[in-house]
Amino acid sequence: MKNLNLAEMLDNVRARTPLVHNITNYVTVNDCANILLACGGSPIMSDDAGDVEDITSICGGLNINIGTLNARTIPAMYLAGKRANELEHPVLLDPVGAGASRLRTETAAGLLDALKLSVIRGNISEIKALAQGSATTKGVDADEADQLNAANQDSVIAFAKGLAEKTGAVIAITGATDVITDGERVCLIRNGHPMMSRITGTGCMLSAMTTAYVVANPERPFEAVCAAVCAMGLCGEIAHARLSAADGNSSYRNYIIDAVYNLTGAQLEEGAKYECL
Amino acid sequence: MKNLNLAEMLDNVRARTPLVHNITNYVTVNDCANILLACGGSPIMSDDAGDVEDITSICGGLNINIGTLNARTIPAMYLAGKRANELEHPVLLDPVGAGASRLRTETAAGLLDALKLSVIRGNISEIKALAQGSATTKGVDADEADQLNAANQDSVIAFAKGLAEKTGAVIAITGATDVITDGERVCLIRNGHPMMSRITGTGCMLSAMTTAYVVANPERPFEAVCAAVCAMGLCGEIAHARLSAADGNSSYRNYIIDAVYNLTGAQLEEGAKYECL
Amino acid sequence: MKNLNLAEMLDNVRARTPLVHNITNYVTVNDCANILLACGGSPIMSDDAGDVEDITSICGGLNINIGTLNARTIPAMYLAGKRANELEHPVLLDPVGAGASRLRTETAAGLLDALKLSVIRGNISEIKALAQGSATTKGVDADEADQLNAANQDSVIAFAKGLAEKTGAVIAITGATDVITDGERVCLIRNGHPMMSRITGTGCMLSAMTTAYVVANPERPFEAVCAAVCAMGLCGEIAHARLSAADGNSSYRNYIIDAVYNLTGAQLEEGAKYECL
Repeated sequence: MKNLNLAEMLDNVRARTPLVHNITNYVTVNDCANILLACGGSPIMSDDAGDVEDITSICGGLNINIGTLNARTIPAMYLAGKRANELEHPVLLDPVGAGASRLRTETAAGLLDALKLSVIRGNISEIKALAQGSATTKGVDADEADQLNAANQDSVIAFAKGLAEKTGAVIAITGATDVITDGERVCLIRNGHPMMSRITGTGCMLSAMTTAYVVANPERPFEAVCAAVCAMGLCGEIAHARLSAADGNSSYRNYIIDAVYNLTGAQLEEGAKYECL
Repeated sequence: MKNLNLAEMLDNVRARTPLVHNITNYVTVNDCANILLACGGSPIMSDDAGDVEDITSICGGLNINIGTLNARTIPAMYLAGKRANELEHPVLLDPVGAGASRLRTETAAGLLDALKLSVIRGNISEIKALAQGSATTKGVDADEADQLNAANQDSVIAFAKGLAEKTGAVIAITGATDVITDGERVCLIRNGHPMMSRITGTGCMLSAMTTAYVVANPERPFEAVCAAVCAMGLCGEIAHARLSAADGNSSYRNYIIDAVYNLTGAQLEEGAKYECL
Repeated sequence: MKNLNLAEMLDNVRARTPLVHNITNYVTVNDCANILLACGGSPIMSDDAGDVEDITSICGGLNINIGTLNARTIPAMYLAGKRANELEHPVLLDPVGAGASRLRTETAAGLLDALKLSVIRGNISEIKALAQGSATTKGVDADEADQLNAANQDSVIAFAKGLAEKTGAVIAITGATDVITDGERVCLIRNGHPMMSRITGTGCMLSAMTTAYVVANPERPFEAVCAAVCAMGLCGEIAHARLSAADGNSSYRNYIIDAVYNLTGAQLEEGAKYECL
């Protein structure tokens, strides 16, 4: 059953040029900025406690990514998040590496406690760590034991719905199959290509782009998240089809951003592989 | 009237390999380093208060970009700037986002007060905020209301000349039409392509490259700035002509740096679109 | 005499997916992450004192690069290095810019004193500065006066062997000809292309990849380092052959990472140009 207005979500991003404040890691920050521009948004990066409140005030939404969190930027995440909450701007949390260190797990959990989040996006290991305050994760990738499969699909969906209900956020657990839920509706998405895991930052880029989609579609955050996740996966497929024999992960990264730049609403509707439960 | 020796400016960069110290943002720092190498310069990045004085001492010039300024790096900007001034090295200031937050506006204005600047490069909103201590800017892009047009061209030029006279710096206000002035001479440049605004960092890259041009042409900073601005815009045009249907902003970024790498003095003279008033 | 099992070294990286903790500079960090993924490893970046001990504990090895060292990250380098030593994880030091500033020279020397290093990789000027506590280096590139040539080859080799004996680390002095030694064995490598010096971060990328090779081949660090250095140089050659007339250093960077992604053990054995003394 295809009943989401994905094209409209995408078109609204292009029409409204949402300005997104990013507090993100320095590994993939350039790709995040370029994918925001590619999808039709506008990025601004600012992570100093003395700067973030002013910056988030002029933006439409906030993307918090803890990938290279540190003692200087963690307070800025709280300050920016609180100001964004006051202004009723959407806030997305990407708990990169939650479960891999105490600082990451505690910071992610602390932000979840302190802030009203609109979206939480991560892999299954990170989201579990965030929800449970502990996990055993292998670095910043999801553990194999955590991956969604036929055996655990029902329990993963129940877990995601519970977290959505508890937090009020749209939960996006991404992997080979993505699970998106706002606590009531559930969407499973099967776009993407395995080679996307061989590029650094596909998750970070998706979080940045998802924030733009949610800002541009304020009445429909669930559909907006689904659209962004489908778009990223579909662009991974389009970019993969473009690879020559000599191309590898660096060209693939460029082609994915290029594909986002060129993606139309019609293409998105045509190529999206999702199932609403 | 084409009376600037652009080719000579470019050739001097390639011949002299100017070493440029950059205190810049982490969003576009990699592109800044690669464009410095592409144009014939050599980059070094250092932003710690304990490191910058030594580093700037072995360089030929300093590029200060406040794009992701923070409590740790702001003091380093002052220290490096003062040392560079003592050594009579050219210093360029790129006031990214001045007007978008108090910290950015005050830091940019503070650096302008404390340092002898050779070049100030930014969009019109940033330069106005820098000069006036306030502005209403939409993030890091220029406001539409500020864009140069037939109606405001004379007042923008007068503003730029006044700032150049007051500061002693070459002022480069970049946009669809760029205004360059040293207070006496004025050059309008019309190279470039609108798609350049869909890449993060074209401004930052231009600032880095401009610093290299000014270091390599110490007797003629005005011409050096004009040459760098023409070169960047022209490379935006060359790169745009190279785009395939599947290419987007990520490939475009690569092609622009590639074009800078391959640009010759003859190409620059041929393709530059400028007018000296 | 070709007697190193380079293919086996490479295959072990692909088979074992070594997780590498990087404390590195923000200039080239994205390229370091992508080349780690390209070669078959898995990257994680973390540089906060409160985070690095947990992170390095779940990794297989640690890559310390001082390219944009600062007051916040230097203590994290020591903490991570000590924990990695306790866990007997390989630690690589890349003393970027040692000799160019007191902070860099002292930090590199301090890390060398405090830590048991498995590999030290840098250009000749950096390694001399590290060993001697002083040097005159031009930024982050090797001085011409220091470059390996027929006249100084014996003395450079003797110097490298001495440093290897003193530190217990494999020493990798890279340049047009690379010198690798563990104090007993010496390997000279002549892969690569001069254009690699026109890209920022080829050294940083090599250090990251070398760490992955050493982690995946714990019994044979010397061969692992030789294999990584040959692989990087060979990929520089493969990528150069792919350049079109319009390509420059930005595409070259992408092609090098792509070549690492596609490199096979057979290709490496075939293309490696080394000599064991």
